[in-house]
Amino acid sequence: MVKIAILGGTGYTALELIKILLRHPAAEIVAVTSRQEGTPLIAETHPSLTKRLDLRLEPFDADRLLARGVQCAFGCLPHGASMSALSQLLERGVRVIDLSADYRLRDPNLYAQWYGESHHDLVNLAQAVYGVPEIYGDEMPTAQLIANPGCYPQTAILGLAPLVAGKHIEPTGIIVDSKSGVSGAGRTPKLNTHFPECNENVAAYNVGQHRHTPEMEQALGDVAGEPVEIIFTPHLIPMDRGIFTTIYAQPRRTFSESELLELYRTYYAQAPFVRVVKHLPGTKDTWGSNFVDITLRVVRGRIVVLACEDNLIRGASGVAVQNFNRMFGLDEKTALW
Amino acid sequence: MVKIAILGGTGYTALELIKILLRHPAAEIVAVTSRQEGTPLIAETHPSLTKRLDLRLEPFDADRLLARGVQCAFGCLPHGASMSALSQLLERGVRVIDLSADYRLRDPNLYAQWYGESHHDLVNLAQAVYGVPEIYGDEMPTAQLIANPGCYPQTAILGLAPLVAGKHIEPTGIIVDSKSGVSGAGRTPKLNTHFPECNENVAAYNVGQHRHTPEMEQALGDVAGEPVEIIFTPHLIPMDRGIFTTIYAQPRRTFSESELLELYRTYYAQAPFVRVVKHLPGTKDTWGSNFVDITLRVVRGRIVVLACEDNLIRGASGVAVQNFNRMFGLDEKTALW
Amino acid sequence: MVKIAILGGTGYTALELIKILLRHPAAEIVAVTSRQEGTPLIAETHPSLTKRLDLRLEPFDADRLLARGVQCAFGCLPHGASMSALSQLLERGVRVIDLSADYRLRDPNLYAQWYGESHHDLVNLAQAVYGVPEIYGDEMPTAQLIANPGCYPQTAILGLAPLVAGKHIEPTGIIVDSKSGVSGAGRTPKLNTHFPECNENVAAYNVGQHRHTPEMEQALGDVAGEPVEIIFTPHLIPMDRGIFTTIYAQPRRTFSESELLELYRTYYAQAPFVRVVKHLPGTKDTWGSNFVDITLRVVRGRIVVLACEDNLIRGASGVAVQNFNRMFGLDEKTALW
Amino acid sequence: MVKIAILGGTGYTALELIKILLRHPAAEIVAVTSRQEGTPLIAETHPSLTKRLDLRLEPFDADRLLARGVQCAFGCLPHGASMSALSQLLERGVRVIDLSADYRLRDPNLYAQWYGESHHDLVNLAQAVYGVPEIYGDEMPTAQLIANPGCYPQTAILGLAPLVAGKHIEPTGIIVDSKSGVSGAGRTPKLNTHFPECNENVAAYNVGQHRHTPEMEQALGDVAGEPVEIIFTPHLIPMDRGIFTTIYAQPRRTFSESELLELYRTYYAQAPFVRVVKHLPGTKDTWGSNFVDITLRVVRGRIVVLACEDNLIRGASGVAVQNFNRMFGLDEKTALW
Repeated sequence: MVKIAILGGTGYTALELIKILLRHPAAEIVAVTSRQEGTPLIAETHPSLTKRLDLRLEPFDADRLLARGVQCAFGCLPHGASMSALSQLLERGVRVIDLSADYRLRDPNLYAQWYGESHHDLVNLAQAVYGVPEIYGDEMPTAQLIANPGCYPQTAILGLAPLVAGKHIEPTGIIVDSKSGVSGAGRTPKLNTHFPECNENVAAYNVGQHRHTPEMEQALGDVAGEPVEIIFTPHLIPMDRGIFTTIYAQPRRTFSESELLELYRTYYAQAPFVRVVKHLPGTKDTWGSNFVDITLRVVRGRIVVLACEDNLIRGASGVAVQNFNRMFGLDEKTALW
Repeated sequence: MVKIAILGGTGYTALELIKILLRHPAAEIVAVTSRQEGTPLIAETHPSLTKRLDLRLEPFDADRLLARGVQCAFGCLPHGASMSALSQLLERGVRVIDLSADYRLRDPNLYAQWYGESHHDLVNLAQAVYGVPEIYGDEMPTAQLIANPGCYPQTAILGLAPLVAGKHIEPTGIIVDSKSGVSGAGRTPKLNTHFPECNENVAAYNVGQHRHTPEMEQALGDVAGEPVEIIFTPHLIPMDRGIFTTIYAQPRRTFSESELLELYRTYYAQAPFVRVVKHLPGTKDTWGSNFVDITLRVVRGRIVVLACEDNLIRGASGVAVQNFNRMFGLDEKTALW
Repeated sequence: MVKIAILGGTGYTALELIKILLRHPAAEIVAVTSRQEGTPLIAETHPSLTKRLDLRLEPFDADRLLARGVQCAFGCLPHGASMSALSQLLERGVRVIDLSADYRLRDPNLYAQWYGESHHDLVNLAQAVYGVPEIYGDEMPTAQLIANPGCYPQTAILGLAPLVAGKHIEPTGIIVDSKSGVSGAGRTPKLNTHFPECNENVAAYNVGQHRHTPEMEQALGDVAGEPVEIIFTPHLIPMDRGIFTTIYAQPRRTFSESELLELYRTYYAQAPFVRVVKHLPGTKDTWGSNFVDITLRVVRGRIVVLACEDNLIRGASGVAVQNFNRMFGLDEKTALW
Repeated sequence: MVKIAILGGTGYTALELIKILLRHPAAEIVAVTSRQEGTPLIAETHPSLTKRLDLRLEPFDADRLLARGVQCAFGCLPHGASMSALSQLLERGVRVIDLSADYRLRDPNLYAQWYGESHHDLVNLAQAVYGVPEIYGDEMPTAQLIANPGCYPQTAILGLAPLVAGKHIEPTGIIVDSKSGVSGAGRTPKLNTHFPECNENVAAYNVGQHRHTPEMEQALGDVAGEPVEIIFTPHLIPMDRGIFTTIYAQPRRTFSESELLELYRTYYAQAPFVRVVKHLPGTKDTWGSNFVDITLRVVRGRIVVLACEDNLIRGASGVAVQNFNRMFGLDEKTALW
């Protein structure tokens, strides 16, 4: 039984994480932290946990967590705040899966450029493993720190990896057009996530400027062995959860659709959570699950990749548990099937 | 052409009001006020008004509005703030339709009890006409101040008026169970109107404590000529607009459904915006319109009234224009058909 | 490991049942039947089961199921068809949990009256246990046939049981006003469940005529020891899943809210899936779970009970597994926590 | 007063058309046809028209329509059926605006290829004007037949016209990624538009095979004076109405965003219903209106055009009235502002 702390327990990713871990036979949640005043019962913040998790939210205190026997911490804090807290646990030997963006970009200059502040935990940044298990999974059993990936990047990375791995497409001008449910924006009320504003509405946001872009480029560059350039447009869709990503790439030679499906099936033969399908999938097929569903089409010589996932599960808390399972030598499907 | 000012232009009721008035052949919007800093173009706050209304939001200033020739003001301000601003216009002879709750309850003690602060414009309160045109419409041509009714009360009042007018039901223990779209909660982001909280969710709120209760009782008491007691439960529904109200009343004698429909058709024979229908209506039938659709059923001796409307139009801005039309001697359907 | 067959595998309740049973440590799905032509892979009908359940839909054949070792069948067939198939399994000794309405009403005359055809399996009807485990749970370990309850009735029955058990309320004139997500209408496309018709819409349907009414009255009559009369109005809400029920009852003496909460907590002290809460719950609190959340308010002397559940889980497939667990002597929470 | 017939009155575009025409000072609806049995009141099919349009649905009969003085017919029939009916009116001298696809593609071979049947009204096809008023508007005053454009094509055509007109982009490999509300799929219930299937879901459909593709290419080819090639991917979004289209094009030289906005503002200087905006628009900004909102961004050297509209108004019934206004020499904004 691995004793677990969750840092930053009031948001949606923490809630999903808790629900998954409550079904996990080898994990025990012993602490959930929050900056909320007092030490309210977690069920007061998340009524759906009533009768299920009888813990109080408590302020973060690294030594107290250690005294409670915490072996693994999941970070659900905002970027910046995340590295401040997690570095204290890392230096005390706790293993960490960070759901923030703090340890995702290897190059601290990229971090400064996209997040607008300089990175202040370079030592741990250097040892972080980027948490897409289908690509970096072999490094996880020995990792102390896994940087859980962003929700959008996983659809783009898994959707493109077989193509860039084989250098089958031009590495520049790749278009990633994503459609996301609103839970991806977090739990803090804002005007653009106010129900009467975003319901019955579709809009693009952060066109060409979304912080998940360099993540996609870094991981795909690793797979490709050469720089990869992404043009990324996210859109907000009036639904709770789900990301649908449509990718357009220029192949270097002619491909048939069946050839592409075969290429993907082979590439993901060992990946239980990637489903290469022939039909056109929808986000609802992956709803509540850790799967990414992928198919491909060829349109006028271009390759169109269609990939979807549940942004809260596969895009955040599910893949975090998949990473946890790999980190601790468990079957990666545990609690996720 | 009546020159119009709209006070408090940033919310949903103001936006709907502007859209209706832009189609009105006898109304001209000359000013829209707001407490927003600077004097931004209204299209910056409401992008849907781009190219349609070329005005800037301006701070409220009674004399300046008068100098601009304003003859009628629509108040879209929060309660409390509303009477402070509108009293200045009323004393300058401007006619006013107030969409806030400030002038709805004749008894200032009821106001103090339900709104938690004492009323500070008793003079104008005494002359206000409650703005359900099907009931108080005859007083409107001479009124200087119309208190536009709440969204929920209109479904309850119009749904029950023919029954209480004829003393056909017990005046106590009347159950009003309402279901409302989220736009009724206004445009200020809060946790309970945050998309991922209220989407895919139904919940009751303010059970037995909603401020629209005394409005219903006052108007129905007027119609009945005796006190009427309402048990009111509002619910939040994951849709933009629409109110559906289900009412349960104990008849004093046996009624058939056709008898009830006939009673209602007669009562509303002169009311263009009340549709007494035989089928079970849905809020979508009234969407974007100023209609209230009503039908009735008898279940085990109880009368069940089903009434619905568009909460932003009939429930607020549409009925405000209907009241405006009556106030200024125009066909009450103008701009609303 | 109990070998399980699911009859009628193409609808939503079958899909949810399969997902729950895939996580069940003591259940193995060995067959899923359907009248679909050919024997398509179940993943072709339910893409979300791709890679998860490698079975083909097959025509119903009682002997073949027996030969495969089926010990328990879950019926997800339409009423009428259900008793035809299940009676064949019952006579072969298979234990059955029927999610249709066929065995819910003890009185075959009531069945004929509400379902418009006469019952043709009176022998099994006589031995069926009505499947609300909090009330009839003690009969389940020895039952061969459990009639899984309707979605609406569970909120009404569990919401009223403590009150009628103690004869605290008048047994007539009880108003049950329910709001349901659209999945409750099943998977067959119809105009009233066509997205552009029911999205952004609320409407009542089958007012006073819904077939779940006699179920509520039968179970509550059992609890009360006297006849109970329900006035039931269901409404369709634009969301996938969730039922919210608002109940109005006339108490026989004065109650305080805390007294009522205490009464309910005591009554449900041994019921893991009933959560008596102080706050106003929403359907989303129960989403994806087997919980029913209940609270109470007193408004002008009336008792208002507010109860909600996930209609596909607690309202159908979750309670079916809870009943299965009790039937086979397992912890009733298995696979449901 | 132009006397109008609407052919095929049971769908969503007919309903919207009726609502717009009821506000039109120069149009009078004298007949609405349908293949429905009997001659039901139109309010039985569209309850929202209760009290608003007192007509019965009648079978199509060209001579009877002529006898009623019909001068203009709007066709809301399925393709194929549309040309059969409309050709009868055209030969009788009635002017026609066809909302089906029958007269959109000038090349009957293209029609046969994309619609799977040969065209059987070549004479009228040869004289049809494609109904994007911002491009073909000058031909409308003398046209007898306007082929109202598809919903998707208008966002693509108006979104790209200024770029292809100036030969500023490569005419091949243009990516058009569209997101549409469900009303675009019509009113016939199908599994993929069944609420519990498409709610909380995003999926692509007809990837590279949607029939609107050749329409886009034909109109843009006209504007460009050279062939234009589109890669088109439509997606279904869980909302009633709205289309958001994201377009990716390769410029032939470097452009700044302000240069592009200026180019578009100049191109659309005379177009009241095209709003070139600086902010990122959402479909809700255009909801219920005849506007198309367009903005542009430059991302890594690519031009990204973002265009949105209300698919039922601008995408169908609104632009049909705009075309009607131009056909009959009226201000094109009549009834649409």
